[in-house]
Amino acid sequence: MPSISKDTQLCMSLAARPSNIGTRFHNHLYAELGLDFVYKAFTTTDLAAAIGGIRALGIRGCGVSMPYKEDCIPLVDELDPSASVIGSVNTIVNDGGHLRAYNTDYLAIVALLAAHDVPADADFAVLGSGGMAKAVVAALRDSGFGNGVVVARNERTGRALAEQYGYPWQAELGAARPRLLVNATPVGMAGGPAADDLPVAPEVVDAAEIVFEVVAVPEDTPLVRRARERGRRVITGTEVIALQALEQFVLYTGVRPTDEQVRRASEYSRS
Amino acid sequence: MPSISKDTQLCMSLAARPSNIGTRFHNHLYAELGLDFVYKAFTTTDLAAAIGGIRALGIRGCGVSMPYKEDCIPLVDELDPSASVIGSVNTIVNDGGHLRAYNTDYLAIVALLAAHDVPADADFAVLGSGGMAKAVVAALRDSGFGNGVVVARNERTGRALAEQYGYPWQAELGAARPRLLVNATPVGMAGGPAADDLPVAPEVVDAAEIVFEVVAVPEDTPLVRRARERGRRVITGTEVIALQALEQFVLYTGVRPTDEQVRRASEYSRS
Repeated sequence: MPSISKDTQLCMSLAARPSNIGTRFHNHLYAELGLDFVYKAFTTTDLAAAIGGIRALGIRGCGVSMPYKEDCIPLVDELDPSASVIGSVNTIVNDGGHLRAYNTDYLAIVALLAAHDVPADADFAVLGSGGMAKAVVAALRDSGFGNGVVVARNERTGRALAEQYGYPWQAELGAARPRLLVNATPVGMAGGPAADDLPVAPEVVDAAEIVFEVVAVPEDTPLVRRARERGRRVITGTEVIALQALEQFVLYTGVRPTDEQVRRASEYSRS
Repeated sequence: MPSISKDTQLCMSLAARPSNIGTRFHNHLYAELGLDFVYKAFTTTDLAAAIGGIRALGIRGCGVSMPYKEDCIPLVDELDPSASVIGSVNTIVNDGGHLRAYNTDYLAIVALLAAHDVPADADFAVLGSGGMAKAVVAALRDSGFGNGVVVARNERTGRALAEQYGYPWQAELGAARPRLLVNATPVGMAGGPAADDLPVAPEVVDAAEIVFEVVAVPEDTPLVRRARERGRRVITGTEVIALQALEQFVLYTGVRPTDEQVRRASEYSRS
């Protein structure tokens, strides 16, 4: 940890229930790269005053988590397309009092679809209709995926999400066997009510060519384990978290660490 | 420097031109005492939003310097008597969103007059009529000093200060030879226009029993050097700065370091 001076730049996060992952990830990279930054997670009960404080104190950047991702939109000065396309912010960058908001989840998903060479003509099913499902569906559309479906039990949010990006909605997957299967539900999440479950029937996983898991904790959800056992190509939630955090890091510092540095920081952040 | 987590408490300062002294002093003591705190100096162009951000982000404490010491009064929730007696704040403590403001310069001066056994029946002259002069004059009055004078070229501010606390004002010291001589002007301050000067004629210094220098940089101003050469009892601006910073530290953390720990932190902060 480098010593802190008046010139050290502060970055932070806002969440109802802060974790230590971002604090550890960013501070680890600052130390490794010798950058004069420090990072700390915060919570607040007054979002407008918190964002006003970021602007007034010259806090360089802020990660935004639940439940502030939409409420902060009227409080910033400008939306990057990554945030406006899904109406959700997870990153604020402060340039001399001007706050520009991004969504690096969206940016990370776009980048991962490209990095894993997922073919845009693959038919897909996105499971879920929450914030991460929105980032996934927007990223698929903007990456040229023309043929897919949003699957969500909640008809109101599921249909709204599907229609917003021009895809059909279904309550259940039914007999479909999509080439690209994306889980954006909480099924498989550690500590959740369905931590040991698959989000679809096992034969749907087995029939997929590529499985994209958005759940990040644990890294090897039941879905990831099954897909790997069957030799499917897998993109994990850990990759999404690490890449979106990397994009935040680059936006805040202007420095892009190597893959190996990011891997070590990501590992440290979860230890 | 201990590693920072989501539970680490942030303390800070606000000044138009931040120095590194407070940042170094507080962080040094946090490390020495193993406290999960971090300290950083900030500046702002929007004081109301900055104070609102302190409240909303749960920033534990804030040192307040020029030019915010009076402007922040309507922005806090409660004034401690140390701040209300001189109408000036240099410390804000945040207890769960409730901001209480103190003036630890005043507290430090009261404590130093007592610690150095300055007799309350000594006649005094306070040179100057700025913010520190106000803290000195209020501290003298509240410590029972009945016989003294405020000496300031500026009649408006000098007379107002003297009358507020029940002392006479003089534009010049004249033939008076006070037992307690207090310099609260910038004369002798490093980098100032009178860095090499005494604030009074040399014979006034030689005639004093106790010399109280409020200028802190350098530690040995021309006034301090002359007073020491002549064997006078001396209270220095460095003592004021260190003690007021210590009182801030105790207000923020609830922990009182030893004199030796404070001495080392104070030395480190100026190195």
